[in-house]
Amino acid sequence: MADFDINILGCGSALPTTRHLATSQIVDLRDKLYMIDCGEGTQVQMRRMRIKFSRLNHIFISHLHGDHCFGLPGLISTLGMLGRNGELVIHGPKEIESYMRPVLDIFCKGLPYEIRFNLIDPTTHSLVMEDRSLSVYSIPLKHRIPCCGYLFAEKAKEAHIIREMTDFYQVPVRMIQEIKRGADFVTPEGEVIPNARLTRPAVAPKRYAYCSDTAFHPSIIPIIEGADLLYHEATFAECDAARAKETFHSTARQAAEIAYKAQVKRLVIGHYSARYEDMAPLKKEADKIFPGTILGEEGMRLSV
Amino acid sequence: MADFDINILGCGSALPTTRHLATSQIVDLRDKLYMIDCGEGTQVQMRRMRIKFSRLNHIFISHLHGDHCFGLPGLISTLGMLGRNGELVIHGPKEIESYMRPVLDIFCKGLPYEIRFNLIDPTTHSLVMEDRSLSVYSIPLKHRIPCCGYLFAEKAKEAHIIREMTDFYQVPVRMIQEIKRGADFVTPEGEVIPNARLTRPAVAPKRYAYCSDTAFHPSIIPIIEGADLLYHEATFAECDAARAKETFHSTARQAAEIAYKAQVKRLVIGHYSARYEDMAPLKKEADKIFPGTILGEEGMRLSV
Repeated sequence: MADFDINILGCGSALPTTRHLATSQIVDLRDKLYMIDCGEGTQVQMRRMRIKFSRLNHIFISHLHGDHCFGLPGLISTLGMLGRNGELVIHGPKEIESYMRPVLDIFCKGLPYEIRFNLIDPTTHSLVMEDRSLSVYSIPLKHRIPCCGYLFAEKAKEAHIIREMTDFYQVPVRMIQEIKRGADFVTPEGEVIPNARLTRPAVAPKRYAYCSDTAFHPSIIPIIEGADLLYHEATFAECDAARAKETFHSTARQAAEIAYKAQVKRLVIGHYSARYEDMAPLKKEADKIFPGTILGEEGMRLSV
Repeated sequence: MADFDINILGCGSALPTTRHLATSQIVDLRDKLYMIDCGEGTQVQMRRMRIKFSRLNHIFISHLHGDHCFGLPGLISTLGMLGRNGELVIHGPKEIESYMRPVLDIFCKGLPYEIRFNLIDPTTHSLVMEDRSLSVYSIPLKHRIPCCGYLFAEKAKEAHIIREMTDFYQVPVRMIQEIKRGADFVTPEGEVIPNARLTRPAVAPKRYAYCSDTAFHPSIIPIIEGADLLYHEATFAECDAARAKETFHSTARQAAEIAYKAQVKRLVIGHYSARYEDMAPLKKEADKIFPGTILGEEGMRLSV
C-alpha cells in the first residue's frame, strides 16, 4: 500500500512533443488518489502506469491553459463508461466550470455519477479541501492568467500504542482509541499515566507542494517552507530567462532558488519547453543551487 | 510527394487502452491534408508520425462523441502557437459549433488564424466541400446520435500532353492548358486534330470512403460503390453482435459484408472495442466475406 507517493503522468508544456506529455500528476495517499491538472492524454497515461480510475475522487486544476485541463472531458466520460458512482470533485479557478459545463451538457448526459465544482480563489492561500488524511491548500502563483499551486499536507497519524505498557496499567480496550489520539490514562486509583509512557509518536506528517505554472515568485516561500517534496516548474533554461519572464514561467535556476530559500527537502522539476531535446542542462543548472534536483519525467513515482 | 494517401492516427474506440488511440485519420492528397475526426491525443500522434501541422486546412468531424473530437481544442491551440494563419474549416454536425465556441472563447483569445464552421446535415448525402483537387461528400450513417461518414472523391487530373504530337502540329504554348483539359486543336488551315491524338489520359480519379461510427447500414452501399478504399468501423466481433446492435456499431463481418456488396477495391477496419486484446479474430471473420481485409492500426499509411 502506498503511503504518500507522487506519480508524474506528464511534465511537458504547451506544445506537443514526442518526448513529454501534457501536465498531470496523481498524489497517492494511503491508497486514495488526488489528481493535479489533467492535460490531454492523461487518461491513456493512467492506463499505461496502471493507475486505478476507481480510486480517484478529487481533481485539482491549477489554471485554465489547455495543457493543464484538456484531458478532463475524456477522463470524465471514461469514468462514466466504467460505471463509476459517488461524487467527483473538481477544484479550480471559477473558469473551470464555464469550460466544463457545456462539455458535460453535450457529451455527458446520463453520467452515472455526480460532478461537483469547488470554485476557489487562486489569489489567496487558503484551505481548498480536507478529508481524514489530508488537507489541501492553494498556493497563489504568478502567471499570465489566474493560477495557483496546491499544497498537500498529510494529517498526523495516530500514535502507536506500547502494548506492554497498556497491559501493565490494565488500560481498558474502550480507551485505546483516545490514548492513540494523545489522551493520558487515569487509573481507578486516580494515578495519571502520561500519554508519552503509553505511546510512541507516529511518523511526522509530510507535505508535498505543487507549483506550476509560475514566474519566479518568492512570495510562495513561506507557504511551502520545509516541504518534504516540491514540484516547481522549470520551463526554461537560464539562457532563455528573458523568454521565461515574458511568458511568466521560471528557469531551472529560479526553481532551485525557490527550493533552496524555502529549505524544502527535495525538489523535482518539470513543464519543460518543447525547445529542449535534452533536459540534462536544466538539471545541471538547478543542481548548482539545489544539489540533487530531480528531473521529472513521465512514469516517475516519487515517495514524499 | 504523396498522391492520395490515408494516415491512420488512431483506431481505438471510446475506452482508452494502451493498444489503440482514439479515432483520427489524415487524408493526404497532392500534399494537402484533410483530417477526419480528432480524438484525444491526435496532435501528439501527428508529431509521432511526422505529419506537418501547416498543411492542414480542413477537419471533418463525423459525430459528437468524445473519442472523435476531444483532440480538437488541443490541436487548435497548438496551431495557434505555431503561428498558423489562413482559415481552418471545421466541417461537422451543428453540435460541433456548440461544443467548440465556448472552448475557443475561453482558451483561444487572439488566435492568429480564423476558424470557420461548416455545419452540415449528417442525415443527407450531399457535397460538403470542394477544392481544386477534391470533392468531399457526407455519407449518412446509423448511430446513437447524428453521425455521418465522408467520401473523398479525387477530381480528374489533367491529361498528359504527347509532346511529339503537339510539336508536329505546332500547337502554340498558350493552347496547351486547354488541350490538357480536353480541347481539340484546330490548325491555321482549319483541320481539327482530336484531343485523343494529342494527349494520354490521366490516371482515373480515386475515391476513399470513411464510415465510422455506424450500425450495419446497407443504405450506404450506393454511395460508396466501387470506392478504391473503404474504412469501415468494426467495433465488435460477430460473437458480440448483440452488443453491436445495442450500441449501433458494426461487427467485422458486417463491415466486410458492406465492402463486398459495395464492390469496393480494398477494405480497412478499425474502431476496435477495448475488450479485445488481439485483433486477428476480427480480420479472420472479415476475410471470410472480403478476403484481404486490412486491420487498421496506429501509424499505418495506405495508398488509395
